[in-house]
Amino acid sequence: MIKPLISLAAALALAAPAIAQEEAKPTPSPNQIVDAASANEWIAIPSEDLLVMTLAPDSEGNPRKVVIQLMPPPFSQGWVHNIKLLARSGWYDGISLNRVQDNYVTQWGDPNYDNPEADGETKKLPDGLKVMGEEEYLSTNGDAAEAWMAAISGSEIEKPIAEGHISDFTKRRDQVIGTLGSDSYSSRSIFFRGWPLAQDGQELESNVWPTHCYGMVGVGRNYSPDTGSGAELYTVIGHAPRHLDRNIALVGRVIEGMEHLSSLPRGKGILGFYGEDELDKRTPILAVRVASDLPGAEQPTFKYLDTDGASFARYAEARANRRDPFFIHPAGGADICNIPVPIRRVAGE
Amino acid sequence: MIKPLISLAAALALAAPAIAQEEAKPTPSPNQIVDAASANEWIAIPSEDLLVMTLAPDSEGNPRKVVIQLMPPPFSQGWVHNIKLLARSGWYDGISLNRVQDNYVTQWGDPNYDNPEADGETKKLPDGLKVMGEEEYLSTNGDAAEAWMAAISGSEIEKPIAEGHISDFTKRRDQVIGTLGSDSYSSRSIFFRGWPLAQDGQELESNVWPTHCYGMVGVGRNYSPDTGSGAELYTVIGHAPRHLDRNIALVGRVIEGMEHLSSLPRGKGILGFYGEDELDKRTPILAVRVASDLPGAEQPTFKYLDTDGASFARYAEARANRRDPFFIHPAGGADICNIPVPIRRVAGE
Repeated sequence: MIKPLISLAAALALAAPAIAQEEAKPTPSPNQIVDAASANEWIAIPSEDLLVMTLAPDSEGNPRKVVIQLMPPPFSQGWVHNIKLLARSGWYDGISLNRVQDNYVTQWGDPNYDNPEADGETKKLPDGLKVMGEEEYLSTNGDAAEAWMAAISGSEIEKPIAEGHISDFTKRRDQVIGTLGSDSYSSRSIFFRGWPLAQDGQELESNVWPTHCYGMVGVGRNYSPDTGSGAELYTVIGHAPRHLDRNIALVGRVIEGMEHLSSLPRGKGILGFYGEDELDKRTPILAVRVASDLPGAEQPTFKYLDTDGASFARYAEARANRRDPFFIHPAGGADICNIPVPIRRVAGE
Repeated sequence: MIKPLISLAAALALAAPAIAQEEAKPTPSPNQIVDAASANEWIAIPSEDLLVMTLAPDSEGNPRKVVIQLMPPPFSQGWVHNIKLLARSGWYDGISLNRVQDNYVTQWGDPNYDNPEADGETKKLPDGLKVMGEEEYLSTNGDAAEAWMAAISGSEIEKPIAEGHISDFTKRRDQVIGTLGSDSYSSRSIFFRGWPLAQDGQELESNVWPTHCYGMVGVGRNYSPDTGSGAELYTVIGHAPRHLDRNIALVGRVIEGMEHLSSLPRGKGILGFYGEDELDKRTPILAVRVASDLPGAEQPTFKYLDTDGASFARYAEARANRRDPFFIHPAGGADICNIPVPIRRVAGE
């Protein structure tokens, strides 16, 4: 049974009196709202969900590490299984970043894959990789469907649906933030346990899928019905390519070190792959590890701001209606990719 | 008098039979549609509207040039006046790229501006700079209003309103492309003479403003009511920060060499400015010239795809509904920043 959905409008109405009392002070910026959030609004990300990718040092010898958060159930779990298997088998160690296409993606994988003229041989994939179907692009299909229904009914996952558990953000200026809103790509956008999602209906049971926002990580593939194994991955380095939603599996997002992927020289070959005369621009990947497999002292700890909490609601509202001193004209809305979920590294606890 | 507005839906209806006849062939990609556009659909950009910015060579000694197209009337013409004056007085020569904030902007200006502890002195601005008011952020206010009304009535600018002259793109999946559509930031989005615009009403006379898409160039400023002179400029290097619309003047867009601005090392200081210990990462700007001032042989020639033409309508529709072989699930919509206007360099004619 689905519990009633409390919209963000309700959460904001609760928050409004506090804002009114502060009228004499400058209105806080979105970042100031996040900084003021209480400790219990920050939710730890399991180290089992974190990948630590070590790139070769840069030209000045500075180390480069990238941390990726993998999506929790019920999202894309077949590919997530594969990615952890590939990491644990050491398969990613020694591959490289082969494609950097401006305003689109940075992509990594076996540099000899799909290139019969390459000097090296294609790396053998480990046993045990799952083959996923296209229906799994929706988290309301296949193996994911039961988990999604359980998640939204609160019957199997620890946190039940409660007020503000799933927040809606309008996409229309003529409606207040908090009503159900459609955008160019879906009937509505929601945040669910820290992740940006889209749905093609107004019900929680509607088809649901993750959205291609900046920094999201997806699974490269060939032509349909191939859905990719997870051996070839990419991250978004430009304007959200939402047309890829439901066409490629999203499996996570970069939560630290994004600049090591976004500031690389763009490839001059087709689709931004490094061409024959610039193969030295490929960045080697030295290692990819599941954080929970690292020695305790090396395990990074990250938390995300509870997307069901009052601070996130205020933050999202402030992103959509900037009133801090620089701004003169609040937008009246925001697309889901312009409300990045706050994530921070914390000292080990 | 405003002539009737013909929506993109009409243009697409015209295009549809051609698509139906080609069912046996793979559906063309957006880029293939652009490549197939006839020569008369490409409109030359006046060299008076182009800035050529020469950066210091990169670490390997490769030259770096960036070409910026300035907005034509009636958009932001006070700032455009200033920028041409600054370029022609040589003011930009010797300044630098001082700020690179990931997923946001790269910004350039006098590195000693607003920094009283800097060793160097602030560059003296030339005489003749205009001071613009915030009302000019809307191209339907102030000096621009008359020009906009003239533009849409077709009475003063060479090209009259005609079928498809202003195209509408829906932002909702439950409507076909071509109906008037709102998005998170405006009541509708339109393309006008090659530029992405937003309006807060459904009429051509409604307030209109340019949109902060990837690669757009804007005028840095301090707190309101300062609107900036044009001496400090930035370009968008990440997801469209549409909350800046109507809060900062947009004056143009990068049409070549974007990678020289987007792939720079990110600044570690506040707001992505290069910090005290990394000032050597600032990229020097050697020169900025108005292209029409260059010797003829050095003048670049660019054309944009007529946004009122049939090919652009097909291109936009295909961006919103990818049916080329890679895709399995057309999105059913696209936001205006995900439909970049095709621009190409052509040999001098």
